[in-house]
Amino acid sequence: MAEPFDTVDVIRAKRDSERLSDEQIDWVIDAYTRGVVAEEQMSALAMAIFLNGMERAEIARWTDAMIRSGERMDFSTLSRPTSDKHSTGGVGDKITLPLAPLVAVFGVAVPQLSGRGLGHTGGTLDKLEAIPGWNASLSNDEVLAQLEDVGAVICAAGSGLAPADKKLYALRDTTSTVESLPLIASSIMSKKIAEGTGSLVLDVKVGSGAFMKELDTARELAETMVALGTDAGVRTVALLTDMSTPLGLTVGNALEVRESVEVLAGGGPADVVELTVALAREMLAAAGQEDADPAAALQDGRAMDVWRKMIAAQGGDPDAALPVAEHTEDVLAEADGVLTGLDAYDVGVASWRLGAGRARKEDPVQAVAGVELHAKPGERVRAGQKLMTLHTATPERFDRAREALAGAVVIEPDGATRERAIVLDRVAG
Amino acid sequence: MAEPFDTVDVIRAKRDSERLSDEQIDWVIDAYTRGVVAEEQMSALAMAIFLNGMERAEIARWTDAMIRSGERMDFSTLSRPTSDKHSTGGVGDKITLPLAPLVAVFGVAVPQLSGRGLGHTGGTLDKLEAIPGWNASLSNDEVLAQLEDVGAVICAAGSGLAPADKKLYALRDTTSTVESLPLIASSIMSKKIAEGTGSLVLDVKVGSGAFMKELDTARELAETMVALGTDAGVRTVALLTDMSTPLGLTVGNALEVRESVEVLAGGGPADVVELTVALAREMLAAAGQEDADPAAALQDGRAMDVWRKMIAAQGGDPDAALPVAEHTEDVLAEADGVLTGLDAYDVGVASWRLGAGRARKEDPVQAVAGVELHAKPGERVRAGQKLMTLHTATPERFDRAREALAGAVVIEPDGATRERAIVLDRVAG
Repeated sequence: MAEPFDTVDVIRAKRDSERLSDEQIDWVIDAYTRGVVAEEQMSALAMAIFLNGMERAEIARWTDAMIRSGERMDFSTLSRPTSDKHSTGGVGDKITLPLAPLVAVFGVAVPQLSGRGLGHTGGTLDKLEAIPGWNASLSNDEVLAQLEDVGAVICAAGSGLAPADKKLYALRDTTSTVESLPLIASSIMSKKIAEGTGSLVLDVKVGSGAFMKELDTARELAETMVALGTDAGVRTVALLTDMSTPLGLTVGNALEVRESVEVLAGGGPADVVELTVALAREMLAAAGQEDADPAAALQDGRAMDVWRKMIAAQGGDPDAALPVAEHTEDVLAEADGVLTGLDAYDVGVASWRLGAGRARKEDPVQAVAGVELHAKPGERVRAGQKLMTLHTATPERFDRAREALAGAVVIEPDGATRERAIVLDRVAG
Repeated sequence: MAEPFDTVDVIRAKRDSERLSDEQIDWVIDAYTRGVVAEEQMSALAMAIFLNGMERAEIARWTDAMIRSGERMDFSTLSRPTSDKHSTGGVGDKITLPLAPLVAVFGVAVPQLSGRGLGHTGGTLDKLEAIPGWNASLSNDEVLAQLEDVGAVICAAGSGLAPADKKLYALRDTTSTVESLPLIASSIMSKKIAEGTGSLVLDVKVGSGAFMKELDTARELAETMVALGTDAGVRTVALLTDMSTPLGLTVGNALEVRESVEVLAGGGPADVVELTVALAREMLAAAGQEDADPAAALQDGRAMDVWRKMIAAQGGDPDAALPVAEHTEDVLAEADGVLTGLDAYDVGVASWRLGAGRARKEDPVQAVAGVELHAKPGERVRAGQKLMTLHTATPERFDRAREALAGAVVIEPDGATRERAIVLDRVAG
């Protein structure tokens, strides 16, 4: 018994709404990584944190302890400044795909260490794996070399970064302790700080398709993460962005790659372009390039050039045809009027049920599955018009996907046609 | 996926302070017993129950589901009525030892299915195992035969009763979810109802040495358990009794057997006799023997006769000398005055550290270890007088035991000498 604390006492302290001491936090994270704190003990502690919260200083220490549970990457040998983006996760959120090459156009290195999807939001790696030959796994040396050569890399996060967070993240998913501000903030920021980026732009989603359904709680999460990053010496900015309806017109893996390529070719849906450019401006400004014009780099093909190099560097063929679903079904508008609601969560669940997402970590995903939208909120529609097309390789999934969409669509005869704002607010350190 | 619920949804409901449905409760207890609900999921649910509570109807359903997780015993074939006692656990609480044979004197069968100690309160089986040859493990048939022949049995609860509770009890101990009213009430009552007793008297402890430190919360626990028992058709009464200071003058295994035998011989400390008789009256009344005189049966040797038969029936030698500690040290009074405090919890921890208790389920206990008291609160003491004697087989334990006692003793020069009340309140269905 050389352990300085008893797990039961640490759990009890948070259960009784006490502030955990720095020493308790350092120990419990280290002991959890070593397996001395058991999974069932950490889940009880996570639920106590969920229900009783943590002060800012506790969250900062918890984040720091998770960083110290593993290795840190070092981008200081690169000739370019680094800037990274993290999204809290949304439906149809393919922004990383056009954004990383776009920012790299201006000489800023973008290390996007990403994850796979679990639940109703898709994973960036799952999307790129729809490209024939593309490989998500790179060594740290390969990441550095690609950042130096191409300027952008999107790959799987190595297992050495914040291993305590990896264990805790998997545990939270099965114990209903995901949507906790202290746990979300420390999970995201421990990975991003350990990754060693010089600056970081956070895309904090707000709305039905996001962890944070309300602007107030999303702003509190953004402020907490910006403070954590700033205190750790990372220039950090957050945008609060709308996730009440899916981003763009596609949800699903190959479907979202197709749309991303459209954006890189100077086209694509207005909301995807707007958010890509807004995030690029923030990343470039944080890396010292206040005067860069990312919108121009989408129009003139420079971003597409970097995209092609980035995909090719990881074994992918940027010219290969993307896979297409054998089975599709349309969802039609049931009335004339203005489409005032197209719920992000419902569409995310439908896409997941069609095969785009996984219920368990080890499940495969379908590249072809997903939902294609033909109208967005604020647009006028007519009864019988196609609103969505459902895509899947396994047509027995259509019924359950349609169930998920039962309440997703709202059409109001007298609804106002309007432009939606994508960026709702900005939080800086 | 033939399961009707997803564990994550059940945890989320309680996390969000919802009432669990009957179907959710039935499923989660059954699925936990089958291993479909994982330990880390149940611990998150237990913490959510701890912090958000349960309504009476939820507790009743939870209790019933735990009963249905295993077998039920049936005492209806016995020629005698049955009555059982359960204590929520205290320091020096050896009452079961004299009580079971005392009640059996009057033709009422007493099936005391007991446990071992964990933490600062001792276990009844650990105490009886200080008697050479005594065996705690009986089959259900042996229990029935001994109840018919002798009238009293104290033995280990079989593994078939409420297996969901057994798993959950072990889990709560390591996850700081012990002191929760719904979880305590359902744990105790599921075992007692599954055991099949006709009537039940609960000894709910209040004070520093008990789960419940305050009279209000102890009364709420008592009322909850009495309602659960009554609704299940078991005549149930609760006494709220003082646990601010240890019961009697001994804490430890062989030491408490010795004191119990003194009580059965018509002597023993006044508080132990008072509580034994009070609980016996309640058990006898609940079994239809309102006019029995248990105090007389302690004085005239009838209770001792049943004790001797009960010990012998389980292989023990009632005449064998009890083991005695090789090492003892005295704790002296540091001032003249009235002893106004002798903290139950501190004495319990000291006894545990001397070797009477165990830190882990698989640890052995010392029969000889414990604390002997020479004065009780309300008595006048003089500086230098012996207040306690510490007993152990392993003298290196004395220092840690003395540390536990550092704040245990309060002597006030002008303190009032007084009689303490043992029974603080009574709750009936």
